[in-house]
Amino acid sequence: MKELREAIRREGKGIGQHIVKVDMFLNHRLDTRLMFDMGRDLADHFRKDVPDIVLTVEASGIAIALATAHRLGDIPVVFAKKSQASNQSEDMLTAMAHSFTHGNDNCLRVDRHYLPKGSRVLIVDDFLANGQATEALMSIVRQAECELVGIGIAVEKGFQDGGKILREKGINLKSLVIVTGIEDGKICMADND
Amino acid sequence: MKELREAIRREGKGIGQHIVKVDMFLNHRLDTRLMFDMGRDLADHFRKDVPDIVLTVEASGIAIALATAHRLGDIPVVFAKKSQASNQSEDMLTAMAHSFTHGNDNCLRVDRHYLPKGSRVLIVDDFLANGQATEALMSIVRQAECELVGIGIAVEKGFQDGGKILREKGINLKSLVIVTGIEDGKICMADND
Repeated sequence: MKELREAIRREGKGIGQHIVKVDMFLNHRLDTRLMFDMGRDLADHFRKDVPDIVLTVEASGIAIALATAHRLGDIPVVFAKKSQASNQSEDMLTAMAHSFTHGNDNCLRVDRHYLPKGSRVLIVDDFLANGQATEALMSIVRQAECELVGIGIAVEKGFQDGGKILREKGINLKSLVIVTGIEDGKICMADND
Repeated sequence: MKELREAIRREGKGIGQHIVKVDMFLNHRLDTRLMFDMGRDLADHFRKDVPDIVLTVEASGIAIALATAHRLGDIPVVFAKKSQASNQSEDMLTAMAHSFTHGNDNCLRVDRHYLPKGSRVLIVDDFLANGQATEALMSIVRQAECELVGIGIAVEKGFQDGGKILREKGINLKSLVIVTGIEDGKICMADND
């Protein structure tokens, strides 16, 4: 996706071998226009699959999930929570995910009532690396007896395994940009439009 | 705000004396249309104050902040983080906030670069209760030498102190709905449109 690739080229920073730092527009500061451009492209890709819920995980998936849901005709968003709160229901679907960014394990939780059985679920997230968060969300979709219609991602780290594994499973995966590697601080991207 | 008041009446649950459970449309499942309706009303209220950044805190403030920023002409959103990650900069502005919902203390963090000195900042959040998160965000705005133009809130718990304290300080506070109390599980609201 042209706009996202240009933003990464202009502002992104590669750190070491693995860290793609894009928090100046994607997951700390949000470039609002870019969020809705990304939402438009993901919505255009998945519209024919008729999703009725967008599922993501807090916190950095929420913005792109909301923009996508808006472009799909204001369908609801559900975001998985990473911590337990006093106002949560007791009927939670859960799945474990390891975060490489934070170096910890998260138990993702979704209230069963918000994923009604038979819903057509589109998973949306800002990043796909090893696919741990995505696999946890997929487990929650299965537990809820919903149908996964596809997975939309802003930035896929093509040098890690998540995307390959999902494609081998035949899942309808759309990554707006695929980062192929980091060379001397420069973020290299595939031409996948 | 009519749409939010109706959603609270239709779906919200009062638990005990203090918990306003609205996670079926506001902060776990998101009613996408309602998010943009709320963003429209907050944007209409604050447009004359010409904010150039919307500041919120992860996770549940992000959706309404993004919708507000969209309606203000796609100005950027910055969301304060609650945890440290390996890809964060070292030049972080910080402030402590106690969470009554989660029963813990959070250190809110914002990268100094994303709040340029002199910016006109609108704080937006889903809830205002004792005002701990809001006060922490205000501290970060001061540390950044930015100007606070106002605070936009979806649901203010009018039976807790946060709103009163902010109004006494002369801050331009707009709460879309003010909950006055919980009686036998029913959420009582002020008629503040």
